[in-house]
Amino acid sequence: MAEMRMAELARRSGLPVATLKFYLREGLLEPGRSTSVNQAVYGEQHLERLRLIRALSKVAGLPLQKIREVVQAVSGETSMIDALGVTQDALVGEFEAASADSTTNEEAAALLDRVISERKWECQPGSPAHTAAVHAISDLMAEDLTILLDRLDDYAQAAEAVGQADVDAISNAENLESMIRGVVLGTVLRRPVLDALILLAQQHFAQRLNPSALDVK
Amino acid sequence: MAEMRMAELARRSGLPVATLKFYLREGLLEPGRSTSVNQAVYGEQHLERLRLIRALSKVAGLPLQKIREVVQAVSGETSMIDALGVTQDALVGEFEAASADSTTNEEAAALLDRVISERKWECQPGSPAHTAAVHAISDLMAEDLTILLDRLDDYAQAAEAVGQADVDAISNAENLESMIRGVVLGTVLRRPVLDALILLAQQHFAQRLNPSALDVK
Repeated sequence: MAEMRMAELARRSGLPVATLKFYLREGLLEPGRSTSVNQAVYGEQHLERLRLIRALSKVAGLPLQKIREVVQAVSGETSMIDALGVTQDALVGEFEAASADSTTNEEAAALLDRVISERKWECQPGSPAHTAAVHAISDLMAEDLTILLDRLDDYAQAAEAVGQADVDAISNAENLESMIRGVVLGTVLRRPVLDALILLAQQHFAQRLNPSALDVK
Repeated sequence: MAEMRMAELARRSGLPVATLKFYLREGLLEPGRSTSVNQAVYGEQHLERLRLIRALSKVAGLPLQKIREVVQAVSGETSMIDALGVTQDALVGEFEAASADSTTNEEAAALLDRVISERKWECQPGSPAHTAAVHAISDLMAEDLTILLDRLDDYAQAAEAVGQADVDAISNAENLESMIRGVVLGTVLRRPVLDALILLAQQHFAQRLNPSALDVK
């Protein structure tokens, strides 16, 4: 495996030397192999780590504490599934909707449980993603949007296809670091793609609406 | 149709009288029927209008100028399709990804065109939603995320199901105002629901990944 000095590591990772030194001090980047008192060399695994950190900080915009949690999960004895869980939890904050009141939350949780069991999803009931789903459904209920709640099964079916494509996309990763980087970039950058495609599909189907059915002023 | 004084209009819309007076001054709410020099009565259509404005301001968080554009489209001679278009354009700002450089944008536009023509979507090429899609795909390209780009057809298929459910949900609206309100609330509040459901589906499929295929440290 080719080794490199810090200047090359900076160039190849696209990050300034000062940033690399900061990550070394913070323990996010492991020390290189010392070649003299003031010099060290770094390997491909350091570059891989920096690519992951860059995705977490620049692309996902996570704070240092969240970045640390993900990096620790990746570098520790954590299993792949647990590392994926920690990463998803760290990213969910970005998705969290405004929480509704607790009575609505109970109804929403019951509705979500029904959807999950119908689709036979094995997922973590106490995870931040689950809480985010309960709050988001609560917010629909608070606005009395039964027209959308009635279509929850359609949305769950579409979500299943997206979730499967997301996981398929990272399934061929060569190591845990690049897999987690795929999860981070996938979650953050795939989201606006899907959102915009939905808008285009809405344009398509809206043309088929029957305007005469409406009391257009 | 029952008429009501401003105090009741405020109560039923959940908005303060001062806010109603502001919307009257701004021309967003049409004047009521005068019953004396200082008094007027309002009808159900005023309530409907206020529910729409509330969705645009409180839920979607749109600035006054955007709210005005949507309200004008709804109250003018605009066709239903055009009113839907104006509403979608106003909401897209929320979805806009950071724009990538123009070379990537050209490649991204070509890729998007292929997806659109394969799915036989009739949509507006110059619309903000189309631009948002190009930029979002550009950002995937900039990060070299071919693993996700390879699954663009899967995402488009899922987006089609979501877009169809969204449009179906509003298809039974009684008038243009409640239809547009459905579009606004649907777009803004359905989004976190779908995002959270995708995370839960990811949890489900991630458990089937083969950890031994990975070089876990």
